[in-house]
Amino acid sequence: MTRIDRLRERLEEPLLVTNLVNIRYLCGFDSSNAALLVEPDRVRLFTDFRYIDEARAVPDVEVVQTKRALIAELAETLVGRVGFETVLPYAQYEALAGGGLELVPRSGMVEAMRAVKDEDELTVIRRACKITDRAFERLLDVRFIGRRERDVAWDFAEIFRHEGAEGMAFEFIVGSGPTGSHPHGRAGDRKIGPSELVVIDAGCSVDGYSSDYTRTFSTGPLDARLREAYEVVATAQDAALGGIRAGLTGVEADALARAIIDSSDFRGAMGHGLGHGLGLDVHEDPRLSTESTDMLVSGNVVTVEPGIYVSGEFGIRIEDDVVVTANGIENLTHLRKDLVEVG
Amino acid sequence: MTRIDRLRERLEEPLLVTNLVNIRYLCGFDSSNAALLVEPDRVRLFTDFRYIDEARAVPDVEVVQTKRALIAELAETLVGRVGFETVLPYAQYEALAGGGLELVPRSGMVEAMRAVKDEDELTVIRRACKITDRAFERLLDVRFIGRRERDVAWDFAEIFRHEGAEGMAFEFIVGSGPTGSHPHGRAGDRKIGPSELVVIDAGCSVDGYSSDYTRTFSTGPLDARLREAYEVVATAQDAALGGIRAGLTGVEADALARAIIDSSDFRGAMGHGLGHGLGLDVHEDPRLSTESTDMLVSGNVVTVEPGIYVSGEFGIRIEDDVVVTANGIENLTHLRKDLVEVG
Repeated sequence: MTRIDRLRERLEEPLLVTNLVNIRYLCGFDSSNAALLVEPDRVRLFTDFRYIDEARAVPDVEVVQTKRALIAELAETLVGRVGFETVLPYAQYEALAGGGLELVPRSGMVEAMRAVKDEDELTVIRRACKITDRAFERLLDVRFIGRRERDVAWDFAEIFRHEGAEGMAFEFIVGSGPTGSHPHGRAGDRKIGPSELVVIDAGCSVDGYSSDYTRTFSTGPLDARLREAYEVVATAQDAALGGIRAGLTGVEADALARAIIDSSDFRGAMGHGLGHGLGLDVHEDPRLSTESTDMLVSGNVVTVEPGIYVSGEFGIRIEDDVVVTANGIENLTHLRKDLVEVG
Repeated sequence: MTRIDRLRERLEEPLLVTNLVNIRYLCGFDSSNAALLVEPDRVRLFTDFRYIDEARAVPDVEVVQTKRALIAELAETLVGRVGFETVLPYAQYEALAGGGLELVPRSGMVEAMRAVKDEDELTVIRRACKITDRAFERLLDVRFIGRRERDVAWDFAEIFRHEGAEGMAFEFIVGSGPTGSHPHGRAGDRKIGPSELVVIDAGCSVDGYSSDYTRTFSTGPLDARLREAYEVVATAQDAALGGIRAGLTGVEADALARAIIDSSDFRGAMGHGLGHGLGLDVHEDPRLSTESTDMLVSGNVVTVEPGIYVSGEFGIRIEDDVVVTANGIENLTHLRKDLVEVG
């Protein structure tokens, strides 16, 4: 059964899919301007001139060429009762609502399908993770001390390229010393010093699917407090990897690691969730966090990435990518977890 | 007067800014989760733990730390009549509307400010363009024939790095032979052959601002039809560069080039608009196209990029970045326009 057929089984009315990643997932069509209208016995793919050749190569859909203002054109031409994805910007919703459609808000229908990976998807993600394993191993040959975070990030991208990555999954994070305390900082102009912690968050894309790893390195002997913090994060991650399985809620999964950090000297220092789904988007369902409303099921691919962040001082994060199974996990990340020194 | 003060002058009610690029423009704060509430005599910046250090460094705003589900928290805490940006996803609009706010849809208020660059912005964009000039010159040293588009794109990124780019503005396009006929194709696995056209669309980012150039090269002698098509695009671009000035509509600007292509043997082959604004987003206002509703004003920075695309055969595009002035343009791109052969 195709993905579109599986979606149909869940629909109470035709669904107008406008999330471009959802369109890619459903029919393989990758563009910056498209909509897919899934009805019981037909599927129409709307896009503009720029992508029309690629659209015509998509099997089992009727292709309709529109102007660039695609939503405005749909508002003029479509009628009837149609579900729309609530990720749609309000302005486009307003344009659609001004036409002949009776609109029903529908949230997360394709995203819920995407959260559970099929074998083809797992194969691709495994390939991205294999490349990422090799790239992180080769990162140990890169010079850190005295160089800008930005330059280390570039070198790492070059390594990924040589290992066969099709692209970078996101802008790599290289956070050294105090910069590491910003969980989503980027690689900046700061020169990496000796005896610091350096957080490296990187991944690659293969056929649209991403890997997303983090390791934290030292650039020389560290004081006892930093070493202790590292041990706490490693222990927290180990507990999470040992406890995650289908049937846990995202909140329960998060708590496996958070409880350990919060019972250490670094209480409250894990300033983000334990992890997130990973697939065609680098951040997708399910979410593993104190705010999550998700339940883990077999076939989810998620990151497991506890961290400790002390503002102005340092950051530590250790992140693996895993497949959730009925009894536990399959860890796709094959890298050591002890504190490794780089030069 | 600060940008926030200038925005205030345009407001009929407080504005809740949720577009992250608009927030960066207004107060310099760059994150993946924030909102900025601009009221007559106070400004509040909402963000979560991950960005709280950076938020506290923003001058003249009150920082409010929220949970990750930021919009849900605002819905619970804010009251009164507030404008919201209609780029907000419908789901978030619905969440906000469920709280104590009286919501007024407001469209493009900050975007209209961003379309007119100030001197600081122009300085940064000029820097990005200088780097891009040098990078395109050095591209001629790269081997094309027999290599994959993807590998040429990587080499080009490496050149940008050496020339001082902070990052790539977007995923570079390298479209060779028939692949070039997809205006938004990427760099793929196709091996570049001899006597083909190769479209290279690339740019870099400096302090968040982007450059965006395209040149089309040949990999050896071309048949007369391809050479003629190149001349038509070059003539069309020249006409556009000569005619664009403040006071023209986006439709009129587009027509300067389109008229030439449509009166050639390649009628109808310019399958996209002439150009787009360029700034903190690679595509922003104003738009130069048959569908544009914009009017050009002094201080706009736009791309001028006519093209000819013949499906399954070839594509050609020549793209400069220019500042719109009262009497014409200042061209920020200093590269030759004749057909250059690469090896």
